[in-house]
Amino acid sequence: MKKLGVIDLGSNTTRLIVMAYEPGYSFRLTDEVSETVRLAEGIGPSRMLQPTPIRRAVEALHMFYSLCQSTGVDQVIAVGTSAIREAANQAEFWTALREVTALDLRIISAEEEAYFGYLGAINALPLHTGALFDTGGGSTQVMAVRNRELTQSFSVQAGVVRFTEQYVQSDPVSRADLRRLREAAHTAFAPIDWIADLSDGKLGGIGGTVRQLARIDQKMRHYPLERVHGYVLSREAIERIIEELARRSRRDRLQIPGMKEERVDITLAGAVIIATLMDRGGFSSLLVSGQGVREGIFYQHFLADQPQPLIADPRRFSVLNLAHLTHYEPQHCERVAHLSLSLFDQLAPLHGYGAWERELLGYAAILHDIGISVGYYDHHKHGEYLIHNATLLGFSHREIVIIASLVRNHRKGWGELAPYAPILTPDDETRIARLSAMLRLSEYLERSKSQIVRDVRVQLGEEIVIDILADGDAHVEIWEASRRSGLLRRSFGRDVQIRAA
Amino acid sequence: MKKLGVIDLGSNTTRLIVMAYEPGYSFRLTDEVSETVRLAEGIGPSRMLQPTPIRRAVEALHMFYSLCQSTGVDQVIAVGTSAIREAANQAEFWTALREVTALDLRIISAEEEAYFGYLGAINALPLHTGALFDTGGGSTQVMAVRNRELTQSFSVQAGVVRFTEQYVQSDPVSRADLRRLREAAHTAFAPIDWIADLSDGKLGGIGGTVRQLARIDQKMRHYPLERVHGYVLSREAIERIIEELARRSRRDRLQIPGMKEERVDITLAGAVIIATLMDRGGFSSLLVSGQGVREGIFYQHFLADQPQPLIADPRRFSVLNLAHLTHYEPQHCERVAHLSLSLFDQLAPLHGYGAWERELLGYAAILHDIGISVGYYDHHKHGEYLIHNATLLGFSHREIVIIASLVRNHRKGWGELAPYAPILTPDDETRIARLSAMLRLSEYLERSKSQIVRDVRVQLGEEIVIDILADGDAHVEIWEASRRSGLLRRSFGRDVQIRAA
Repeated sequence: MKKLGVIDLGSNTTRLIVMAYEPGYSFRLTDEVSETVRLAEGIGPSRMLQPTPIRRAVEALHMFYSLCQSTGVDQVIAVGTSAIREAANQAEFWTALREVTALDLRIISAEEEAYFGYLGAINALPLHTGALFDTGGGSTQVMAVRNRELTQSFSVQAGVVRFTEQYVQSDPVSRADLRRLREAAHTAFAPIDWIADLSDGKLGGIGGTVRQLARIDQKMRHYPLERVHGYVLSREAIERIIEELARRSRRDRLQIPGMKEERVDITLAGAVIIATLMDRGGFSSLLVSGQGVREGIFYQHFLADQPQPLIADPRRFSVLNLAHLTHYEPQHCERVAHLSLSLFDQLAPLHGYGAWERELLGYAAILHDIGISVGYYDHHKHGEYLIHNATLLGFSHREIVIIASLVRNHRKGWGELAPYAPILTPDDETRIARLSAMLRLSEYLERSKSQIVRDVRVQLGEEIVIDILADGDAHVEIWEASRRSGLLRRSFGRDVQIRAA
Repeated sequence: MKKLGVIDLGSNTTRLIVMAYEPGYSFRLTDEVSETVRLAEGIGPSRMLQPTPIRRAVEALHMFYSLCQSTGVDQVIAVGTSAIREAANQAEFWTALREVTALDLRIISAEEEAYFGYLGAINALPLHTGALFDTGGGSTQVMAVRNRELTQSFSVQAGVVRFTEQYVQSDPVSRADLRRLREAAHTAFAPIDWIADLSDGKLGGIGGTVRQLARIDQKMRHYPLERVHGYVLSREAIERIIEELARRSRRDRLQIPGMKEERVDITLAGAVIIATLMDRGGFSSLLVSGQGVREGIFYQHFLADQPQPLIADPRRFSVLNLAHLTHYEPQHCERVAHLSLSLFDQLAPLHGYGAWERELLGYAAILHDIGISVGYYDHHKHGEYLIHNATLLGFSHREIVIIASLVRNHRKGWGELAPYAPILTPDDETRIARLSAMLRLSEYLERSKSQIVRDVRVQLGEEIVIDILADGDAHVEIWEASRRSGLLRRSFGRDVQIRAA
């Protein structure tokens, strides 16, 4: 395993992520540290970085570098964005930095920043065509995406620290300030006339402000998942948050559930910037990305031997990544997947499901035993927990709930779905029951984990008759699968008979 | 990593466990399969194993052996106990077995069975002196333990299948049958007059019946943990369960929460056997062991190069085992432990805690970051989850809740303790708050994971002044620790000042 540290010095926050990885094969985040250094604080129209923000930034970078050095990080990549890029007194910053640390910081252009943000998000979101944006402390980047390719990008100094300092002087914000803020955001995005062409696609949002808005909306809605990445944030939800923030003083905003202290002042400007951009492009909702510039830089290293650092199939990749990290048994899991999909195909006349359900069932089969890495007992429940807390790329929350539920149900019992009502559709209960039943039957046909059962042949009549094709004596498997066929019977409403072919 | 499979063919159940391990260093359970084969079914006074039970047993053994072969198990140890040991027609069993599998099954004596059960339990329970018992389908073994040494053992044919077949003919059980059952149990344990000498110690119980009783009692009490190992089961609780079982028909017993279908018939006899043994020894409660003969055989292999297969310090061992399995960072964790314990010692005049709390704090420090193996975000919560679901040896449930809570609180926030009220004492909330505060401060003094902060010097006055001894510039750490000192201040009721020495 290699370890890469990526540091991103923004205008509001500086962050370190440490990724442990085997190139092209598997990775996991092992450290993340974030400091609100507010490098752009007081920068004003003269674009002079102020001594205190410089000191805070340099200290944070020094700390991050020390952390990398003492935790066995092989390589550190550090980049600086908007605030430092545009500073009139860069030299002062460099002097301060070099006094305390040997860290090699590189200033990246707005185009590079857009590209890395795109790379981070495009590898992680279910978004093929549409637009991405990355709203930071000093600027917002907007990227056009067609078939996962970056076709155009745009950068404007509509950053949350900058706009807050320029337009939000009153507390609570005055109507005049709010109007000026909206106008400034409107002006900022006026040039991107190409964005309207992308409104058939999706909009993906990167950055701390988007995550903050998502967290507030999730709390308001009593959303059942902790996951922010992949969350769908509606334009109306952002408007509600703007109203809530505008009505309150800074102090009072801390009472809003999910509100982070270090963002009480800047989130209003951020929400207005994002809402205005959505209106400009005609998007009624956005997909929140938990990954951005730092992860983009990581992917460039992780996939260095590819022509482009794009994961061809992020869903499949991240499922296998999770399986590798939790030491799955490939032969057993692949046979369970094969049997599950064979049942799925042959039961198609009864369930009528398509490629989407088939794909999710296959993933659940690969992941069904990963909970053993937590503890053998109740490993179906641990597997559900691991899936809900894993980095999974390119999935919607609904898909993650379905996969986790199938894993939960793969041995016995039934995972309650009521808590996930805001995420699932009414027919998902039947869908989950039927897919779980196929997975469970396949698991018991692999009871001895010996790949004795090669395949199944299904005959559909008044009852479902399943003939077992085996390499050897499979009567223990047939007996076990028969005992566990109740869910299949109930979910399809037909008797089930399992017998040797 | 090596893999050992251990199979135990009992009179009621046959079970396989697979342990992956590095000898003497680390292990984890990777598979467990259990089949209720009821080998002793219909054995009667002539001691003839019946053809159907033989077939069921042989099939299960064959399946277990296939599983071992195809999942890379290096060595399989299979042992047979009471039913097969005493069978008049062993030859028939051997013929049937050899027809289907090459598995090498060894019949162990009652003394060996007692020894392996002792080994499994003594390495896993907080029990130094007292008695252990292992109630199976065909017999019960009782072992005397002094200073963790097995000093005496006793075996009697008081098994749950045997007693059920002999004494429980009515359904619901008649008063006469229940009386005969109690008398038979009484007679069975009459010879062990030495057990009364051990009633100052603890009683530990092994076997499926004890676990079943614990599960029912936990459900009746709405016990907050899923963990059965280490659960304290009182004599009164067992009496309540006996009454509940005696009142109901077999069918109705399935309605008792926690009752396993395959144990509805035999649990009454088991409960009476165990209750009678407790009365014989004067024990008002017992400690449930989740480990027994199989784990004992495993420990013999795992610790093969020791004179005796006893883990010297099971608590410390299992904490480090969990740390290894979850890829902890030793240098960082050991420094956090050192700082936590230094704070603990110097704050002693304020908290008055002793060696017990100090030990738990040290363990929490070792384990504080293990949740990162699940996912970086919210890793304090994942760590709590992992601890609640890990194999931890020699701890009480209260101790596990405390360690898990410290890990939960090590970064931020506060884990609700109300659900654990049945396990904790009223002063544990303060205890957990104070210990968490020390751990949290130490974690932030190790913010850069670079071991810059060497130690702390605490002065106690109207406020708590903590001087930081550092190898290098520690002002980021001091600043961070100061920001996170709120819990320390609140839990000790004094202001806190942290400064460079």
